[in-house]
Order: sequence, then structure tokens, then C-alpha cells
Amino acid sequence: MPFDNVLIVGGGPAGLESARLLADIGTRVVLVEKRDYLGGTPIAERYAALTHGFHDAEEMINKMINPVIASPLVDVRLNSTVTAAEGAAGSFKVTLTKEGNGASAVVEAGAIIIATGFQHFDPGRETQIYSYYEYPDVITLADAEAMLKDGHFRKPSDGEVAERVCFIQCVGSRDRQIGNEFCSKVCCGISSKQAIEVRQVSPSTTVFIFYIDMRMYGYWENEIYWPAQEQYHVQYIKGIVTEIVKKGDRLLIRGEDTTMGRPMEVPMDIVVLAVGMEASQGTRQMAQIFGAKQNKYKYIEVPHDALDPVATSVQGVFVAGAAAGPKDLDDTIGMAGTAAIKAAGLVRKLALAEA
Amino acid sequence: MPFDNVLIVGGGPAGLESARLLADIGTRVVLVEKRDYLGGTPIAERYAALTHGFHDAEEMINKMINPVIASPLVDVRLNSTVTAAEGAAGSFKVTLTKEGNGASAVVEAGAIIIATGFQHFDPGRETQIYSYYEYPDVITLADAEAMLKDGHFRKPSDGEVAERVCFIQCVGSRDRQIGNEFCSKVCCGISSKQAIEVRQVSPSTTVFIFYIDMRMYGYWENEIYWPAQEQYHVQYIKGIVTEIVKKGDRLLIRGEDTTMGRPMEVPMDIVVLAVGMEASQGTRQMAQIFGAKQNKYKYIEVPHDALDPVATSVQGVFVAGAAAGPKDLDDTIGMAGTAAIKAAGLVRKLALAEA
Repeated sequence: MPFDNVLIVGGGPAGLESARLLADIGTRVVLVEKRDYLGGTPIAERYAALTHGFHDAEEMINKMINPVIASPLVDVRLNSTVTAAEGAAGSFKVTLTKEGNGASAVVEAGAIIIATGFQHFDPGRETQIYSYYEYPDVITLADAEAMLKDGHFRKPSDGEVAERVCFIQCVGSRDRQIGNEFCSKVCCGISSKQAIEVRQVSPSTTVFIFYIDMRMYGYWENEIYWPAQEQYHVQYIKGIVTEIVKKGDRLLIRGEDTTMGRPMEVPMDIVVLAVGMEASQGTRQMAQIFGAKQNKYKYIEVPHDALDPVATSVQGVFVAGAAAGPKDLDDTIGMAGTAAIKAAGLVRKLALAEA
Repeated sequence: MPFDNVLIVGGGPAGLESARLLADIGTRVVLVEKRDYLGGTPIAERYAALTHGFHDAEEMINKMINPVIASPLVDVRLNSTVTAAEGAAGSFKVTLTKEGNGASAVVEAGAIIIATGFQHFDPGRETQIYSYYEYPDVITLADAEAMLKDGHFRKPSDGEVAERVCFIQCVGSRDRQIGNEFCSKVCCGISSKQAIEVRQVSPSTTVFIFYIDMRMYGYWENEIYWPAQEQYHVQYIKGIVTEIVKKGDRLLIRGEDTTMGRPMEVPMDIVVLAVGMEASQGTRQMAQIFGAKQNKYKYIEVPHDALDPVATSVQGVFVAGAAAGPKDLDDTIGMAGTAAIKAAGLVRKLALAEA
């Protein structure tokens, strides 16, 4: 008989949701997480509020973690990484290795879900113009999340309230020079959400967002983009920032206001780089170990000849969330549920075929 | 015992995918469709190619229809509408009425999935400036799909090859005056896809896209937007068209090029209005019949206090696809799978509770 369980790699939102939904239909799950806690990037990088809804990230993710931990059908393996895999749909044998002591164990599974997510673009890599590693007041979206989670937004250099803050969009995205032609999808929305949060915790701060196109699709338009402008007076400027220099204890951004068609040179106290998504190390490793085809950006490739956002090139291996490319949280939950039911459907089909 | 099956309203991509995936895990389904055929809007409105992948829409949708028709677990009810519902999670009793003869039947179901989709914004409604009903060469994205499906793109008025074609974005979207503040999410992508198709079937045609922001998120950026510009030489102009007038046998569009900051007046042979999404009549009716809360745009509202894109305000009633708001096909498939596994999980839980 084929194995009737599912092994999920990654304990972030995608993996947690897949695990919970599989358990809800009675399917046994092994959930593998390299860290010593569940929750993935929102917890590891200390996210503040989530889009959309502006609810506390930690609280929301805990709502996903609790039923998974409580379920007798989910076997959570923390501090563990997948280091080898063999077999095929219905009969995978996966080697898990413990962080620290290096102890290994082989786990059997009928299907696999890769939910290993993304990592933020490193703004020091090839994009030196923004001086992320030189100036403490040049930060990333992730750095800003952690500050906002602590309930403030002050200059990292001296702890002072910032008079002027700007966000620079598309850092590491839509950029052929660095090889990331794709759009990272969520940065416009996250920047706008953070702009609102900055205005909430620091009402005297003026906030600017420099952008190419504001990708506030669907309800982000009316739920985030309009309130950001009308209620929180965030200043959106279609423009390109080409350089950040230090001037006294402030930063000076140089670039072009493309709507006005004129060069600009504006002092800022904090510059937030809206860094995009890249395939995480875990995603790249799992693609290799399970033999799943990757696209040119090293994300796991899904087929283009079917309406199927969760299939990979390997039968029985599915992908959920940002392991397949830039995804927002709604995408991630949708993929997680779909990968879960597809995995369950496949192991059932294999069992029926053999019965 | 609670009923262990699921009733799905709507036989488009969302309903088809939910039905197939439920059947794959052994759950019985009743699939209700008001038309006398399955496939939903892509078939009814004769879509050409789908984003992303540019595969033939009819072929792709047939791949979804065939397993549903073939499954012994799916009871397809064509020509049928839901006209009443009572009961609660685990014990819904739903009245189906046949188009034509008005015969009605009551179907029992443990859970419901509303997959009744969207309708295109009617560009004659309140937005008279574009003269959709006056000039035959002013068409909508849906009209353009049907022409492209027939393998050509010619002036509806006289069948001549168009020298210049333009797309106008955000018709019926991002517009407070008509009450649709949301972004319809897919129009930028569909317009860009169509622009490529126009250039393929009519290489002598010059194509312009007038836009506010190009919402080419994720891989649409590298898979559609860049090729549209670089390979197909589509001209993107950040600008607003305020009026279309007739001049001889051509159209004259008037507006403002916002990047150049100057008024423009340009002759066109065909103008394509990128009409947005609105809640379909079926979506509005099902919300009423099942008592599911609607948002201010009449779409079915999903909770904002959970990472749950498929729950409604009624336990046991789920939503998949554009019945919940503007969605692309990846969203729709993701929601369909997630709604399916949640519906199956719920009926299982209710059965366990009673056992």
C-alpha cells in the first residue's frame, strides 16, 4: 500500500495552513521546520500588522499555529531539515537531519508539499547606491516591521523622531541588471501599510513613497491605498531615486520626479528600501533534493499548460506559497489549501489503484 | 447524521475546480449551473488565450470540465438556479429551480460553496464619455477576447484592419463617482495580453495602452509586460482619456499625457475599454439566499480578522473565486481548492461530533 500521509517542508503560513487543513480531513501530516519554532518569516522577522485588515501578525500567526500543535494528526519536527529524499508519489522516503546534534531519521510519506518561502533581497548585493550597510538610517521593509512591532518609528542612528521618511519601491525587483525582472507583488502594499503605521505612531512625520507603478491590486486599492492618501496624507511621488548621500545627520536622496519631469534632491531622516522577494535557501535546496524544476529566478516552477498554481515537475511534490514566486498572504493561503487537497487526492487515488 | 456532501453554486473555473478536488478526496458534490453548459465566463464570453501561459481558454477550461463530468461523485445540474435555502452547516436544504419549465427540487448538502463569479462593468452605465453604445469601434475587453478567439482584430464598423488601437484602463474601477473604488486587478494584465495578441494577428497595427498604474504584479511583469514592450512594441502611456469623439471614419481620443504633462488628441481606429469586475447577479442573489454578508460593492465579504479568503459570515457557506471580489485565475484556483478542503473538513468535523 502507498503511504497515506503528507510531508510538509516549512512551518510558515503556507505549511501551517496545509497541515491544519489536511488534519481537518483526517490526513496524517509530518511538518518539518528548520527553526526551533513555528510561524515562518512573519515571526522570524517580527512583522507588525498584516495586510489586509491591519491585525497583529503574531496573534494571527498564533491562530494558525495553535490548531496544528493541538492536532493528533500532525507530527511537528522542529530543528529539522530535509537532507535527502528518494522514492516517488505514494512512497517517498525523506531523510530529516536535526540541527545541532546531526541525528537523522527517515520519514515515509505519500506526497510532499514544499512550503519553504522566500527571503528578502539583500540591498547590499550589487545595488550599492542605497548605502544600506553604510547608513544606519537606511533600512529595509523588514527592519521597519520590527520597529513598528515595538510600537515606534524613530531614527536608528540617534533614536530621534523622524521629520521626513521615504519608501523607495522596487529595490531588487523589476530589475534586469540584477536578474530579477519579476515584480515582487507585495512591496507596494506593505510599504503603504507601513506608511499608515508610521503616521499612526509618529503623527508629526511626513511620509513619502517613491514608486514606478503602485501595484495596489484588488481591495488593497480601497482598503490601503486610498486611506493612506486621504486619511493619512502619505505623499506618493512617481519617481526614481538614484542615490542616497549623507548630509549632516540627515540623508539626502537624489533622483527624478518622473511626473514633474525634473530632478529632485530631498532631505530625509529615514529611508526605507522596499526590498523584494527572492527564492529562499530552503526553497532552492528542496528543489534540488526533490528534483523539482526551478525557473530562472530559482523559485520552484509550476506548469504553464494547466490552471494549476501548486503542481511541480515531480508527481506527488506540490508547492505552496512564496516558494513558487512572489505571493501575498491570500495567495499563500489559497495555494496551501489547494496543495493540501491535491496531495490528499493523490494519495487516495494511489491507494484506490492498488486496492 | 449531518449530510456529508457539498453543494457548489456556479460551474465556472472556481466551481469546476472545487468539484473536481472534492471528488478526488471522495466527497460527493452537487454542482449547480444556471446555463446549459459548464465553463462559466471564459466560455460564455468566448475568451481567447488565458494569462499566464497564453494557452487556448476553451481547451484549458475543457481540461477542467472533463474530469467533473466523468466523476461518479459529481452530480451536475445544468439549467438550474438556487431559489431558496434553509438549514445550517451540516444540514442545508437547497431548492433548485429548472430554467424553462420551472420544476423545482430540494437538494440536501452539508456545506455550500458559492462560486458565482463576476460580471463586467457596463461601460454605458454612468460613464457616457466613452460612447460604447454609440460607436461600434469602441469595444470592451470581452468584445476583444471574442474577436481574438476568431483569430482576427478588425474594425467592427467596416471590417478593415486597424492602423491604431488603444486600450483605456480602469473603466469602472478605481472610480469613486460610480462607487467602485477597488481595483479590478486583472484588467492591466488582460489588456497587455490582448495587446500582444493584436500585434500577433495584425502586425501592422500600432497598439497603445493608456494607464494610471500598470498592475503587472508577480510574474505578469516578466511574462507579459516586458515582452509586450520589448518584443511586441506596445506603447504604454501614463495618461487619462477623458473623451472619445468621432472624426470621419476614425475615433479621436482626448485626454492628458500625465508623464509629459500635456494634453493629447490622438486618432484611433479601435478603442478597447478595459472594463472592470462587478459582483454578478448570481453572486448578489446567492448572498441574499444564503444570508452571507456582502461588502459595500455587493461582493461576498470574507472575514478580515483571520487569514481566510474563503469563509463567509455564515458557517458552512464558503466562497471561491470572483464572487468575493476581483480575482485572477490563480486566485480563483487557490480559493477553489481551499474552499473545497474547508468544506470537506467541516462536514467531517460535524459527522465526528455526532458519532
